[in-house]
Amino acid sequence: MSADTPAFLAACRGEPVPYTPIWIMRQAGRYLPEYREVRSRVSFETLTRTPELAAEVTLQPLRRFPLDAAILFSDIMTPLQGMGVDLTFDPGPVVRAPIRTDAAIDALQPLVAERDVPFVLETIRLIRAAAPGNVPLIGFAGGPFTLFCYLVCGRPSKEFETARAFLYAQPEAAMRLLERLADAMAVYLGAQAAAGAQALMVFESWGGLLAPPQFERFALAAARRTLAALRSRGVPLIYYLNQGSALLEHLAALEADVIGVDWRSPLGAVRRVLGANKAVQGNLDPAALFAPPAELIAQAERVLREAGNQPGHIFNLGHGIWPQTDPDAVARLVDVVHERSARRGASA
Amino acid sequence: MSADTPAFLAACRGEPVPYTPIWIMRQAGRYLPEYREVRSRVSFETLTRTPELAAEVTLQPLRRFPLDAAILFSDIMTPLQGMGVDLTFDPGPVVRAPIRTDAAIDALQPLVAERDVPFVLETIRLIRAAAPGNVPLIGFAGGPFTLFCYLVCGRPSKEFETARAFLYAQPEAAMRLLERLADAMAVYLGAQAAAGAQALMVFESWGGLLAPPQFERFALAAARRTLAALRSRGVPLIYYLNQGSALLEHLAALEADVIGVDWRSPLGAVRRVLGANKAVQGNLDPAALFAPPAELIAQAERVLREAGNQPGHIFNLGHGIWPQTDPDAVARLVDVVHERSARRGASA
Repeated sequence: MSADTPAFLAACRGEPVPYTPIWIMRQAGRYLPEYREVRSRVSFETLTRTPELAAEVTLQPLRRFPLDAAILFSDIMTPLQGMGVDLTFDPGPVVRAPIRTDAAIDALQPLVAERDVPFVLETIRLIRAAAPGNVPLIGFAGGPFTLFCYLVCGRPSKEFETARAFLYAQPEAAMRLLERLADAMAVYLGAQAAAGAQALMVFESWGGLLAPPQFERFALAAARRTLAALRSRGVPLIYYLNQGSALLEHLAALEADVIGVDWRSPLGAVRRVLGANKAVQGNLDPAALFAPPAELIAQAERVLREAGNQPGHIFNLGHGIWPQTDPDAVARLVDVVHERSARRGASA
Repeated sequence: MSADTPAFLAACRGEPVPYTPIWIMRQAGRYLPEYREVRSRVSFETLTRTPELAAEVTLQPLRRFPLDAAILFSDIMTPLQGMGVDLTFDPGPVVRAPIRTDAAIDALQPLVAERDVPFVLETIRLIRAAAPGNVPLIGFAGGPFTLFCYLVCGRPSKEFETARAFLYAQPEAAMRLLERLADAMAVYLGAQAAAGAQALMVFESWGGLLAPPQFERFALAAARRTLAALRSRGVPLIYYLNQGSALLEHLAALEADVIGVDWRSPLGAVRRVLGANKAVQGNLDPAALFAPPAELIAQAERVLREAGNQPGHIFNLGHGIWPQTDPDAVARLVDVVHERSARRGASA
């Protein structure tokens, strides 16, 4: 890689790096006392809509740990408010009128980023102006099917039964709603890149609830639509799928640079299925941060070993960090990933 | 198979059958108006502890549909009350004093079936006396790790973080608790077989939350301990794992006759990993019951096709049936599985 390319961006592109880069899903979050201090003064929604505060909490973990990327602080549901969705947080997202009819789908407005999410774009500009060193910023959006789950069910659910039944009962209506969401997220992510985001990530948190044929027909088709519209932006595209162990072969042909996986799929197997042209992101069990230091180090080394010596690995957890995590364990993890991967020459 | 061996039991043993047998997880449940009628009169806990009522709801689905097996109506937490766990239902199980210390683990009593669960054994005897035709009865218990999740966390949870962190933070204590639960479930299931249960099933609903090394070390080791104690009973043993797509290769050596899987693992791939000596159970998406009839039939045929023509397939959903399901869809599913599998000669 060129001397001034951050390791995170090089790894996204499958280029050699001097050490394995690491960032952590939900690294700006409740496990940090300084985040909880900000949240004690404002609501979650206010925090996501106030650029100075959202930028501040985005930067908090970078001051504590030598992380290799920042990620925009926001919520996957935030852009939907501009489309006409009546949304509150309690504390998870609640859609007052769940979307289950053609009329409700047709009433959704296309997203206009400057009108609907100016505060997100301003947050990105503030982060870029203030980010320490050369740390790149990841923009993100929810995957179309994950957003669909919340819109159809109305609130978080363990199994999202109503959304999954809707796919079978009304497949055409479901596809229309998914396409609208896919197009809106393409606009949203494109605007984030224009505002300064240096990589774009799609969080498909609930895609792994689907049987393979449904995943291919609905969730993956919609994600492809979003990603295809972003190719010309020239920034790395990351697609994260939770609970996707049975679906990996479907991702091999996806037009994403990086596939993020949860903690259950050994990275060696993931790389064999995805092939050499994809970078992988993950995948330490978030629970491993509760192990004594020696065991945490052993678990981190296992993930590095399974990822192998070839280029294209970004270390992360397999899911968001838990609020009850000790920040000292995060410090230990970041250090051990940097040290051990540099010592063995990572993928240089 | 011999002329009087029920198809379900023959399929469990990998013997040829004239048609693919089918039963449905939670077939005695809230989607049936006659079940809701009983529940409107008594609490869930009373229902599980009153043999006449528990036997009645066990038999209800058999009167509606030509199912190939009955399954005891009970709850996986029920046997723990006799071990000294202070348990209520709200509506999910709530453990008043979660078990997180050596002292709490040591305070658990070994299970004595005749003392602690006489009502379950009586329920089994009533069902066997009243079951229509030759329909076999499945007894069941929760998997040790699934019970561990409830005992450590205290109540249902999406991710069971406290239980998963406990495995890393206190592995020896965790293993001790798992072994106590494994031994108790061996006693419990053995007593069910002695009372008349003709097959025994272990529901490891949350084992799939674990990373592969943790699954092998904790959940699978405990399940092996339970199953090993039951081998001499001479009845088929079924091990069901939810969210287990990344863990299938770990199950190939498990001493169970049948492996049940969720709706995300295509059965063809499952059979390749498990080998010819295991029967498989599953795995239609519970959401498929909301499809129009032609699509439901197509989905059922897909599952039959993926299971292949070799013996050893028991049709089921990949997870429990949802309360909002239309019983008419269940009738359609049972008929199509019987008809289509018989027409192509199933695994005769």
